[in-house]
Parts: sequence; structure tokens; C-alpha cells
Amino acid sequence: MKKIVVIGGGTGVFTVLTGLKDYPFNLTAIVTTADDGGSSGILREEFGILPPGDIRRVLVALSSDSPVLANLFNYRFENGTGLKGHSFGNLFLTALERITGDFSQAVKEASKILGIKGKVIPVSLDYTRLFARLENDFLVVGEANIDVPKHDGNLFIEEVFLNPEPKANKEAIKAIKEADIIIAGPGDLYTSIIPNFLVKGIKEAIKKSRAKKVYICNTMTKYGETNKFTAEDFFATLEKYLGKGIIDYFLVNIEKPKNCYLGKYNKEKAELVKYDKKILSSWKKPKVIFARLLRQGPLLRHDSKKLAKVISNI
Amino acid sequence: MKKIVVIGGGTGVFTVLTGLKDYPFNLTAIVTTADDGGSSGILREEFGILPPGDIRRVLVALSSDSPVLANLFNYRFENGTGLKGHSFGNLFLTALERITGDFSQAVKEASKILGIKGKVIPVSLDYTRLFARLENDFLVVGEANIDVPKHDGNLFIEEVFLNPEPKANKEAIKAIKEADIIIAGPGDLYTSIIPNFLVKGIKEAIKKSRAKKVYICNTMTKYGETNKFTAEDFFATLEKYLGKGIIDYFLVNIEKPKNCYLGKYNKEKAELVKYDKKILSSWKKPKVIFARLLRQGPLLRHDSKKLAKVISNI
Repeated sequence: MKKIVVIGGGTGVFTVLTGLKDYPFNLTAIVTTADDGGSSGILREEFGILPPGDIRRVLVALSSDSPVLANLFNYRFENGTGLKGHSFGNLFLTALERITGDFSQAVKEASKILGIKGKVIPVSLDYTRLFARLENDFLVVGEANIDVPKHDGNLFIEEVFLNPEPKANKEAIKAIKEADIIIAGPGDLYTSIIPNFLVKGIKEAIKKSRAKKVYICNTMTKYGETNKFTAEDFFATLEKYLGKGIIDYFLVNIEKPKNCYLGKYNKEKAELVKYDKKILSSWKKPKVIFARLLRQGPLLRHDSKKLAKVISNI
Repeated sequence: MKKIVVIGGGTGVFTVLTGLKDYPFNLTAIVTTADDGGSSGILREEFGILPPGDIRRVLVALSSDSPVLANLFNYRFENGTGLKGHSFGNLFLTALERITGDFSQAVKEASKILGIKGKVIPVSLDYTRLFARLENDFLVVGEANIDVPKHDGNLFIEEVFLNPEPKANKEAIKAIKEADIIIAGPGDLYTSIIPNFLVKGIKEAIKKSRAKKVYICNTMTKYGETNKFTAEDFFATLEKYLGKGIIDYFLVNIEKPKNCYLGKYNKEKAELVKYDKKILSSWKKPKVIFARLLRQGPLLRHDSKKLAKVISNI
């Protein structure tokens, strides 16, 4: 069975895994641990645990058993002093961490309870924080402040880094080493994808791995993070952090959304990612795969089925 | 397979079920829903759900699968604004109630997830509150205030009642009807046992049932609730609420605790329950069973194995 490793965070990795789950692949998700917003941020602050949010989403994506358990994991408390806003799955992981004394063990136990198909590995077990330096040298502190920008979103991000620098989780390194295919993206470039490559040991392991490496370009730009980015910009930025000549395949969506779905995105100053077919077609490595990958709907994301089909043909 | 129904709440019903679980019985627990203290009380207040605490304990008693899940269910958050003090199992049931829209369904889903051996049924699905009228006509409002008394514990409880009067859960009535053995107690008489009989329809159903009815007397008295009660007092009080001539067997512990374990209880003004062997032996109905039932330890409770053995011989 082909071993596929998906690296990321947020809803992007959720989409990829949801689609691939129906194929006979051996799946592993390596998940960012730099999140510090919302429920995750509070639990991280108050319990000193790794942020559970991204792990939780991936667990749900791979859960095979009961839809009730998946709903439960995603349930967010709407009442309750101090409970309001917390996702139940985050509390689940927090309590498991407390009982097992170990975040990595907590993820394993949660995986068992949810009967997940595959493996979920936090990219690192070390505490860290994400920083972004903007083109005006302004420093944005914390993943949440980059993700939901309070800065002028027209300013480009010059650089992101983690501090303190975390070491890679050994299990992540092992999974990368043994992978047949490694997939990065889609997802927020600076807050869900790149933070994984900033963890000490990860990009070196990817470089060494004999796996085919795939990068899935986002469908939409994001104000404050990838404002006005073209597919070429996405790729160049990824390469800046991962290294040149590593990615073998670059998946680019060519499906246009219906106009009715663009309203929300216009408000958020997000746009469909443009690409120059002539330039991209001329690339030797990576090989660029153009495909209709969109899920038409109010949330313009990749369609997990379309995506999985293209990946399965690689 | 013999159908055993255990009625109660708190740790008493936990003890009985833990022991009986190892026998080939078909077990059903009918659990009080009048609790309003601690984590349960807060969730009840803030979410308008039934109090989950007693249900949670019983679920753990009957859980057969993973010890991690049982530990998780009993885990109490020690940090976190608003989270501190909440039992994870209570949050689990609260979230399930929110997802399924129904407390009864939530208990069923939790039973599935925990892989429990048997059935757990809330005695009623209606909101209610427990009141106690003391011998000086002082009214104590709420289960928690009776359980952890703020009143003079030397005052006897003249009467307890539920308001509003809740209707019995149909599933509880059905289980009672089909039972071969019905067990009440041990447990806090006024806060864990009697509240079940105050639910409209329950005592009538017990009366009609062809099951053998067993009442297990407590080992220790409780200041503010059953202060200085003898076994005869326990029985008379139970009969006052359940009706005369209903109980077939009355289990009385004759094992004395080691002195070293009594210190904590002396402080709490709790004493070993005394009994008059001559009087009790002369009773025709109930038949009184004297047995060594104590678990020697800092918490002087019934030993679940000894208890189960005696019950299995009935």
C-alpha cells in the first residue's frame, strides 16, 4: 500500500485527507503546532499544552467510525462561563494529555477512540511561537495575528520564523523517510504550511526522502498573508522555505468559481489565484498539473474527491 | 440471563455495578437526576441540561473497553478559567446532549462510545429540584445543600420532595417491569436513593414488578442526612417513601472497620451503622441478610466483590 504523508494544518489538510481516505493508501498527517488562536490558544496558555486545534481537525478527517464522534469532536460550546467557544475535541485532547502526561500519547489515544484510518503526528512536541516580519519591518507576533491580520494586509510578509526553534518529532521524520508521496498544501501558506518546514529537521528529511513531492496551490489568495499572489508566487514562496528543486508536482486549479460565490471573498479582499499557463507549462521541475479542482459553493475550497483523484494518478 | 435493575446515584450504585459486571447478568442502572452541585450543577444551570454527574459515574462503572476512556471520563480539569473543576465526562455528556438534542440519546451515544456492559437510564427526563424540610421546619433547597449540609446536622430531615414533580422516564418503567431483581442502595439515602422514588410512576412500577426487591443498607451514617441512623432507621425511612411490604431482602453489613480508618469519619461526625440483630432477625419480610460487606480502607465503602457475591446468591 502506497504511503502518503500530508503536511499542513487547518482545513486544507482536512480536505486532502477526506478525499484520500477512500483510496487504499496508508495515510499519515503531519500537523503544524504553531497555532495560538481561539480555543487552542487559550488551552495552550492555560494548560501549557501544544495547540490541539489542527490535530483535532485532522483526527476528524480520518475518523472512520461514528459520525456522532466526529460531530462531537467538532462541537463548540455555545454557553457556559469559560466553556463558551471551546471546541470539545480540543478539551478531549487536553484531558487526554493530562491523563497520559504526553501530547503525543494523547493524540494516539484519541486516534484509537475515534478509530481513525491512518496516523496523525504533531510536527514537533516543543513549544514554539510563529512570528512574521512585514516589508516595513513591523513584527507580527503569533500565528493568530498573522492569520486574522490586524496589520495593513497590503504589506507583504518578508519572512516568517519560529521562536524558540522547535525540533522535529522523530515520528514525523520517520514518516517522511518512509513515504512514497509527500503532499504539502493547500492551506494558509504562512500559518499552516510553512511553519512545518521551519521545524528543525523537517525540510532536510523531505529533501532526503525518495518520495514524490507534491505541492497543491491554493485556490484563493488571502489578504494579509498571500495578497495578490499568483500560482507562481505561491510556488516561489514555498521554495524559499523548503528549498529549490525539491517539489516534483505542482497542482494548480483552473476551475473558475461561479460569480455568486465570490461576494464573501470580495469583502475579505481575497481573489481567485491567477496563473500564467505559458510560464507554468514551460517548467520542467516541478511538473505543473492543471486540473479542475474547485468545490463550487459559498466556501471556495478544493473539492476533496477531485483532488484525491488527481493525486491518485500521480 | 437474569435482569438486574440497580436504582441509585453517587458512588453506591457505582460499587454495586462494578461488582455485578463480572457476573452473567443483564444490568440496568436507573440513576437519579436531582443532583445540582459542583460541575453538574454549573452545567445544569448554564446549559439547562439534566445533571450529568451521576450518569457519568455509572457509565464508568459499566465501561468495559479502555481504561483510558474511563480515566478520561472521570478526569477533572485542574486549570483553565471556567474549565477548572469540570469533570470531562460531564462535558462529554453536555456536548452530546447539544449534538443529539436529547439527554436520553446523549446517554445512549456515550454508552456506545464507552462500550458499556448494560444500560444506563436517567430516572426522569424532566427538570426538577430536591428540597428537604427539617424537623424545625427549615427548608433546605437543592440536593447539594442537603448533601453537603450547611444546616445543623443534628436536625433530622422530616421530609424530602421534588419540585416540580418529574414524570418517570418510560424506559425506566419498562426496565423495572421486566426486572428479575431490583436493587436500591447503598448510597446517600435522601440525596441518591429516595429522589428516585419521588419521581412520578417509579414506586408504583416497583410495587407492581414481580422482581425480588433488595435494599442494601449503608455502612456509615452521614451527618446532616442520616445522623445516628441505625439499620432499622434506614429501612423505616426507605419504606416511608417506597411503601410498606415491598422490599424482600435487606442487606446489612456486619463487618467492623479497622480503627485506623475511622479518623476521617469521626471528623465528619459519621459513624458505623449500628443494628439490633435480635430485632432484625425476627423480621419476616424483608428477610434480613447479615454479611461481611466492608472494603477495609480509608474510604469505608461496600466491597463490590463481596456485595456482588451476596447478591448473586439471592
